[in-house]
Amino acid sequence: MVLVNARNPLNIGAAARAMSNFGFSHLRVVSPFELAFREARSAVGAAPLLAQAEQFKSLAEGIADCSLVVGTTALSRRDPRHTVRDLQQGARMIRRRLGTGQVALLFGSEKRGLSNEDLSHCHWLLRISTREEHRSMNLGQAVAVCLYELAREPKSSFVPAKPALSTAGDLERLTSLWLEALQASGYLKNSQGRSKPPSAAPAEEKVRRLIRRMNLSTGDAELLLGMLRQILWMLHS
Amino acid sequence: MVLVNARNPLNIGAAARAMSNFGFSHLRVVSPFELAFREARSAVGAAPLLAQAEQFKSLAEGIADCSLVVGTTALSRRDPRHTVRDLQQGARMIRRRLGTGQVALLFGSEKRGLSNEDLSHCHWLLRISTREEHRSMNLGQAVAVCLYELAREPKSSFVPAKPALSTAGDLERLTSLWLEALQASGYLKNSQGRSKPPSAAPAEEKVRRLIRRMNLSTGDAELLLGMLRQILWMLHS
Repeated sequence: MVLVNARNPLNIGAAARAMSNFGFSHLRVVSPFELAFREARSAVGAAPLLAQAEQFKSLAEGIADCSLVVGTTALSRRDPRHTVRDLQQGARMIRRRLGTGQVALLFGSEKRGLSNEDLSHCHWLLRISTREEHRSMNLGQAVAVCLYELAREPKSSFVPAKPALSTAGDLERLTSLWLEALQASGYLKNSQGRSKPPSAAPAEEKVRRLIRRMNLSTGDAELLLGMLRQILWMLHS
Repeated sequence: MVLVNARNPLNIGAAARAMSNFGFSHLRVVSPFELAFREARSAVGAAPLLAQAEQFKSLAEGIADCSLVVGTTALSRRDPRHTVRDLQQGARMIRRRLGTGQVALLFGSEKRGLSNEDLSHCHWLLRISTREEHRSMNLGQAVAVCLYELAREPKSSFVPAKPALSTAGDLERLTSLWLEALQASGYLKNSQGRSKPPSAAPAEEKVRRLIRRMNLSTGDAELLLGMLRQILWMLHS
């Protein structure tokens, strides 16, 4: 579980407690600045879990080894860029994927949730069915509800092995190389290809989403990385 | 929902927020002494619900008009005199009874839960399936999980209408451009190779398959075509 820009250490502690209640152990905290959450009193019974939590400066680092990245959202926002699944269905899909690779479940900050940039790292989004008029849940409660559903009746049905999907780290490398090629070729306007133009962020998010839609296997991601490296080498020579 | 001897107003506020999230409105607070919970800041978005909460000095008064009284417990077997149902099954039974009379769902104090005396008012008990080694949940989180399950109904997820998949023609154009870029960059050696080039036909098939595995929409295929054209233009210039 990945908490992105959570502000209140008490909420991080509460999330840790719920994780411990429902049998989850790997907590990651993404925050650009140091956050004093290790001693949070709200982590009743979950102090060891909190002590072992990993801290990252950026989301990309925090999910680099994960092959499925799922964001949580309070909005039923009809954003055609993302599939939004309700918790019941989404949890089923996550459980099925737990055997084939690491899954990251992201929760955003108490005030704003996940940013658009955070969302661009996600394969799809998860939503708890709440009342339309009052969607915004307390962070610790949202975590508890999601983990309760995830821990629900472990599935025993046989799912055929699929090729391992590429990790978020691979995909992010691919995104960078692809952007570099677009800049070197002049597709993205950036005369010297050195500094980021002001409009770089939307282009970056666009390419990131495009690459995630491809659903690449590890093998295909590596293949593409090799091809792009060579193209780049030639573009720069 | 009835909170019996909750000590921390913040937990009462959090319970109110979860009730509002999941569409429940009647909160009752049982406490032998005055409890300043009405202004609890944790009741984000649920201030009206909290303002209308009823307060009772004793549990008996608080549940007098209810026809089914269900207690919550963290323990799997506290008392052989009570039937303990897990949340999933219990919620189903409660839903069935909601049409025929008022149902009280009791939560005890943060430290000790419901007392034996409280339990004696209950028809049966409800338990959230947690890890044996760490059963005790935060009050607000336990409330949220129970209400989530009670409010549960199969709802359809929002899956954006599937974008039209690109045609074989588009994909073949993409394949050609991609191959051309690989040749221009030297990834596929055609004329002045340093080492033994992979023969052209297998390489072509490999790229064709790779591109088909991406399952591209028309829009994505066009996007990629545009990018590749620009890259090629630069490679050739």
